[in-house]
Amino acid sequence: MELRYLPASPFARKVRVAAIELGVSDQIEPVIQQVAPTRENRDYAKTVNALRKVPALILDDGRVMYDSSVICEYLDGCAGGGKIIPASGPDRWETLTRHALAQGMTDAAIQVRYETAYRPEEHRWPAYVDDQWDRIENGLDWVEANSKGLEGPFNIAHIALGCLLGYLDFRWPEADWRSNRPRLSSWSDWLSRRHSFKQTMPHDIA
Amino acid sequence: MELRYLPASPFARKVRVAAIELGVSDQIEPVIQQVAPTRENRDYAKTVNALRKVPALILDDGRVMYDSSVICEYLDGCAGGGKIIPASGPDRWETLTRHALAQGMTDAAIQVRYETAYRPEEHRWPAYVDDQWDRIENGLDWVEANSKGLEGPFNIAHIALGCLLGYLDFRWPEADWRSNRPRLSSWSDWLSRRHSFKQTMPHDIA
Repeated sequence: MELRYLPASPFARKVRVAAIELGVSDQIEPVIQQVAPTRENRDYAKTVNALRKVPALILDDGRVMYDSSVICEYLDGCAGGGKIIPASGPDRWETLTRHALAQGMTDAAIQVRYETAYRPEEHRWPAYVDDQWDRIENGLDWVEANSKGLEGPFNIAHIALGCLLGYLDFRWPEADWRSNRPRLSSWSDWLSRRHSFKQTMPHDIA
Repeated sequence: MELRYLPASPFARKVRVAAIELGVSDQIEPVIQQVAPTRENRDYAKTVNALRKVPALILDDGRVMYDSSVICEYLDGCAGGGKIIPASGPDRWETLTRHALAQGMTDAAIQVRYETAYRPEEHRWPAYVDDQWDRIENGLDWVEANSKGLEGPFNIAHIALGCLLGYLDFRWPEADWRSNRPRLSSWSDWLSRRHSFKQTMPHDIA
């Protein structure tokens, strides 16, 4: 299988971490795919992902699979199923909702990144950036206040949250999300020592 | 169960259509929840969804569930499971990838809406709007070229695609996505006669 990704993408990192956690990363060939707002990528759009996003997984028989959540669930199935996504019951819905929260915060972080790094300065709207940060802050506050969910078997919500925090540290090292969130902060320290996270540290490419 | 929604939201419509298709809509009380970029919504953020988005489902025991995809899967389970989301096998991955494509196009449409309706005029960036439309056009072209996926048992990818097309017609009636896409166009005509879609036509509220 071929995984189209960028080393800086938190969504692609989620898949790469999941593959390592599930013990299937040796079945995946990672291939860098440049994507960015306003970058046309005609060939990638036509043959892989019309949305021009990463990650995308190309199976050996040519089938294409995305987005990151679908790929993670597929890999979970490759590893036997029910490993990082509870197969059924209340645990499943709690995990998937916590995962959706982490994804939504990551979407907001990407919006901030687009607004502050790609959009020409004269077209930036500071209130929008503030609004996106507010969603991230609200989400992190909720996780801190409901930190019981950080315990238990390691799951896709943990992975997505860890990739978000790693992205915040990567793009905005000055953003102090740790203050007043001691539980999330110490959980993040624990996470950063995990092999799957150490192997997938985000970075830009030349 | 209580469903927080807006009548104009394509993501909320997906859940409402799914509930009707699955025969569980009588178990759901729809409650309008105003959300918008830069609208603070402190109470909603704190008690329901930190991301300040709709839809969100509040169960009778107080548990909260989101996003639209998670809610749809939950409702599918309430109806016995495997109804609008194939439970396993290649059908599942194809359906979920087509669903992700429809969701990505809808995200792009929402980006266009935010840029052209909420963002102050002086902060708009036309190249970004063009880029989002290009993703939608690419996606619709892909669906037209792979229209076999429009056949078969009615599923969550069909619902999401139908909600996207309905949103395009609602917000941009002048956008001629039907030209050169005869298969998608006639499928959309068929869909618009379906009870679940007729019952959930998008509209703004005062």
